[in-house]
Amino acid sequence: VEDRLLFLGVDGGGTQCRARLCDSSGLVLGVGVAGPANVRLDLDESFKSVLDATGQCLADAGLTVGSRPIVACLALAGATEPRELEAARRYRHPFRQMIVTTDAHAACIGAHRGRDGGVVVVGTGTVGWGVLGGRHYRVGGWGFPVSDEGSGAWLGCEAVRRTLWAYDGRTPWTALLGDVFAEFQSDPHAIVRWMGTARPRDFARLAPLVLRSAQQSDPVGCELMRIAAGYVDALAARLGALGVPRLALTGGLSSSLAPWLSPETRQQLVPAAADALAGALRLAQAQVQPAMHANG
Amino acid sequence: VEDRLLFLGVDGGGTQCRARLCDSSGLVLGVGVAGPANVRLDLDESFKSVLDATGQCLADAGLTVGSRPIVACLALAGATEPRELEAARRYRHPFRQMIVTTDAHAACIGAHRGRDGGVVVVGTGTVGWGVLGGRHYRVGGWGFPVSDEGSGAWLGCEAVRRTLWAYDGRTPWTALLGDVFAEFQSDPHAIVRWMGTARPRDFARLAPLVLRSAQQSDPVGCELMRIAAGYVDALAARLGALGVPRLALTGGLSSSLAPWLSPETRQQLVPAAADALAGALRLAQAQVQPAMHANG
Repeated sequence: VEDRLLFLGVDGGGTQCRARLCDSSGLVLGVGVAGPANVRLDLDESFKSVLDATGQCLADAGLTVGSRPIVACLALAGATEPRELEAARRYRHPFRQMIVTTDAHAACIGAHRGRDGGVVVVGTGTVGWGVLGGRHYRVGGWGFPVSDEGSGAWLGCEAVRRTLWAYDGRTPWTALLGDVFAEFQSDPHAIVRWMGTARPRDFARLAPLVLRSAQQSDPVGCELMRIAAGYVDALAARLGALGVPRLALTGGLSSSLAPWLSPETRQQLVPAAADALAGALRLAQAQVQPAMHANG
Repeated sequence: VEDRLLFLGVDGGGTQCRARLCDSSGLVLGVGVAGPANVRLDLDESFKSVLDATGQCLADAGLTVGSRPIVACLALAGATEPRELEAARRYRHPFRQMIVTTDAHAACIGAHRGRDGGVVVVGTGTVGWGVLGGRHYRVGGWGFPVSDEGSGAWLGCEAVRRTLWAYDGRTPWTALLGDVFAEFQSDPHAIVRWMGTARPRDFARLAPLVLRSAQQSDPVGCELMRIAAGYVDALAARLGALGVPRLALTGGLSSSLAPWLSPETRQQLVPAAADALAGALRLAQAQVQPAMHANG
């Protein structure tokens, strides 16, 4: 029966959630991508995204829901918050077994193949996570706007802020600020209306404009990348001070941000051995292995 | 009949709204204070606050609603936005005549007794407003979090941000950060939950802690006041560059912030001749005077 067991890893962030389905040998049977899965911002939406991505995995594998038992590890943004984590764990699900943890934890397990180490995840949000001698350390990632400095949401918000400065005549226009303004039909009131309901992922949607402009030496784009990198440096320094022996930079913005980091941070960095989905799958498998050992 | 006319001035901000009722000679008959009146954030709530404050004015004056005709000028936060302004102007009201404008405009008219000049309003939000040869200039004040730098909401958010930095071990604790943390029962997750629904006024509620700590030389409190003052300096500089001949600093945080401003800004400043309520009353009276002249 255990040979029929499937393992599902899910990496849920503020903008999208990805899923990977494996058999007990580790062979990938299917993958899926769906919408946001930040359990703090929207628990129902998060599970909808998770089940959507899971359905894609099963379809990929030529399987139907319920045809084989699944042990799932959902590594979701927002699961750092105790109440949201509890609610997620109680949420109705179709899996044989389900564990819920944070996306940063899974990224850390994936990056270091379960060994001690740390990650700074730079995506829609920003968070540092370390695992050291069985203990977990979390730095930052408390959510936009009071935290998550240097993230996609932060970059987008700061780009909009500077666009309004230029519109006000307080600072010069740059190509980046013109591009951001064009996203709002060059109407500052459209920015205000948008902001009224904008979520972190809406701000983060503007981050690619910042990244691209910085590559083209736009002065505001470069300034924002420098500030963002400084925040990531601070997360890295804190994990280093906590004794984390190796650090990986992960998340959608990591490769764009890496060149802007301080020499100290870059010296600390190691490539991630595997991604957060691999980490989630490892955590899912660890749920079963002890039992198999006990039985075997 | 015109002798029976009353004039109502209302100054509505993100945290509270104040009202003042006068007779046609300018004699104050009553005053009122009620909840927030930011028409961008909540139009119904804004009018509820306005009518609440108006009722207090009438009770003060020993009058009942409808007993005498009222010409009202509602100077409301958020009325800078065209759609919100239109909606406010169409809103059902009990006044003989009602004009709606922004709180910054009324502050400017009050500060300079209707003459050319400018104001920087520092309250829950921050905005610069200038009147020059019949033209209006607006700088900043696009709303938190993409604008309103240096405001009460901004100060509160930045204080919370730094509290989480200290909790993470990224920076040292200070008395201010301890005070902010105590507001959340020293639980970072309580901050996250609060932030999920916090409005600008909720952030601004923490600003008094920052002001007080800066007076006591708290390093973070002083740093935040310096940064906030820099933003207000920038608004003042822009209004100066637009040709505004005199500038007043108004709003709930103005007196606390003034000592932190640059010498250049302080040199530009004149005391406000009167407050935003006086400005709103002046605008209300201006609605009637032309007609009276035409009839007389």
